[in-house]
Amino acid sequence: MKITLPSYTITFGNIPTIKHDGKVLIVTNPKISGIYLKELLPKIQAKEIYCVTIQDGEKYKDIKSVETILESAFNHKLDRNSLFIAFGGGVVGDITGFSAGIFHRGVPFIQIPTTLLSQVDSSVGGKVGINNQFGKNLIGLFNQPQAVYIDTSFLKTLNNREFNAGFAEIIKMAVCFDYNFFKKISNYTQDSLEEIIYKAVSIKSEVVTKDEKEQGIRAALNYGHTFAHAIECESGYEEFLHGEAVSIGMVMANSLAYKLNLITNEELDEITKTLERFNLPTKYKIKNLRRFIELLYMDKKTKNNKIKFVLPNKIGNFIFKTSVEYELIETTLREFQ
Amino acid sequence: MKITLPSYTITFGNIPTIKHDGKVLIVTNPKISGIYLKELLPKIQAKEIYCVTIQDGEKYKDIKSVETILESAFNHKLDRNSLFIAFGGGVVGDITGFSAGIFHRGVPFIQIPTTLLSQVDSSVGGKVGINNQFGKNLIGLFNQPQAVYIDTSFLKTLNNREFNAGFAEIIKMAVCFDYNFFKKISNYTQDSLEEIIYKAVSIKSEVVTKDEKEQGIRAALNYGHTFAHAIECESGYEEFLHGEAVSIGMVMANSLAYKLNLITNEELDEITKTLERFNLPTKYKIKNLRRFIELLYMDKKTKNNKIKFVLPNKIGNFIFKTSVEYELIETTLREFQ
Repeated sequence: MKITLPSYTITFGNIPTIKHDGKVLIVTNPKISGIYLKELLPKIQAKEIYCVTIQDGEKYKDIKSVETILESAFNHKLDRNSLFIAFGGGVVGDITGFSAGIFHRGVPFIQIPTTLLSQVDSSVGGKVGINNQFGKNLIGLFNQPQAVYIDTSFLKTLNNREFNAGFAEIIKMAVCFDYNFFKKISNYTQDSLEEIIYKAVSIKSEVVTKDEKEQGIRAALNYGHTFAHAIECESGYEEFLHGEAVSIGMVMANSLAYKLNLITNEELDEITKTLERFNLPTKYKIKNLRRFIELLYMDKKTKNNKIKFVLPNKIGNFIFKTSVEYELIETTLREFQ
Repeated sequence: MKITLPSYTITFGNIPTIKHDGKVLIVTNPKISGIYLKELLPKIQAKEIYCVTIQDGEKYKDIKSVETILESAFNHKLDRNSLFIAFGGGVVGDITGFSAGIFHRGVPFIQIPTTLLSQVDSSVGGKVGINNQFGKNLIGLFNQPQAVYIDTSFLKTLNNREFNAGFAEIIKMAVCFDYNFFKKISNYTQDSLEEIIYKAVSIKSEVVTKDEKEQGIRAALNYGHTFAHAIECESGYEEFLHGEAVSIGMVMANSLAYKLNLITNEELDEITKTLERFNLPTKYKIKNLRRFIELLYMDKKTKNNKIKFVLPNKIGNFIFKTSVEYELIETTLREFQ
């Protein structure tokens, strides 16, 4: 099974042979390296193959990890004709894509996502960013991969917590774009997993093809994320996995949407229950409300000091709101204290 | 006078009013800030205007200066709708273009080059790079500016050494592309300066329009640069201005071209004399030959361990050579010991 985007193809199933007329640098993390590197290596036919490992976890998605990768690339004398392969979750994918984008003014890279979250969301669409003390993904590029390979067999060694975190992004897409898909997720059974992944990737692909640079519809994929980034920043990128923060962020967005009469109390509950079905957190205690709101304003979508909220408009539809009164934002967030 | 490229326009003469519906960050250096900032500021109409100064000189074209700029941008809460303005020489232009390219996954930037070198060469074409311990411009982007403003009145405060260094890049373009232009430069008088700048920018614009990503002809602009980068790296970016290193680099390339029967001894002398006319260095003592050759191999154009040399093929023409024997490279460079 394949999904073809304008500049690359997403292939589902076993990873095919990867041929490259030049050097290859595989970027991975300790866990994936330990379990799966021996499976990947025989599939790569290249002049020389090198490997570099970065620490896993959102707090390592920083400029230091980029420097680790670039140093490895320079030490092994990779050149413009080289290929980077991201072999891991969202952190590996983002850092590899960013590093490939600035190495010798850009070399191609392939995404081989190994977590549910990266398979359904972050590996597709070419957004690659790193975090700094000011917030998440504030430094980055739009840099499309050369190919994406989605092999769900990697998920068998994913722990439950990571697996559930991936479902947060799937639920996000369903709430914004497809009520029937949302119902399917609410009634999740294990044998529908492959179908759900394919559907999520299809939605993501359609959205990013329509709007690669996030001038319009693509911003809907940020549902829950403006709040999530503030949560992650406030909690030092340690307490929550990204998908968990997104889960709480969606609950916050829903609360705002309810106050703006965009969703009913029943719809709000329905989404919360679906999140809880995957053991995702839906409650959070904001540590410093003023600072938290400041972090919301730091969001990349903020324009001329107006936050752009993505809110559900019934389940299966979304709406952008840039005119939300400060008082309403504050009132909404006071519920999370 | 204007030169129109596919995605932006280069305007010659007084800087026009710059209107921007958002925040503006001017990146400059101490000298330009001191003399010219008061002239630039009244021309900018924007919501808020901020300024950040970075140290001048090739050795400050590094990740630290990028961090200084980004920190200023985050501290002043610039957003996706903001504009960066590079106001200075090549170092300011490169660092600003790179920072703009990764800030919030890319915001627009304007080039206002204030040195001869940046006016005729580095401000046009969207190559923005930084140096690291492995070499020059090895990290970077192709990132086109929104506009380039070339006002030659800035050159009146440029010192002679900087002025002459700019001529090295002009001579480079003439040797590669236009014999008549080369003759004009050889007979330089001050009142032909404006015309020479316009001609150099025209050549550069034509080349980068034909080949934005340096797949072909654009690489000709690297004549002298493969050697120059090694010289700069070996001498710690302190001894020579970039244009001075390019001058020596062209002499090295010419020596190789002569051995390959591409230019005559007379042509070689003619180029050397023209460089000397602008007090440019043409001699260099390589400190460590083995390391120097290693640095040549680190060049971005090297592919599968073959250095791609740009060599003059008579004056006014160039040729790419990837098949030069290692021994010939070594013999040529032994003359520079």
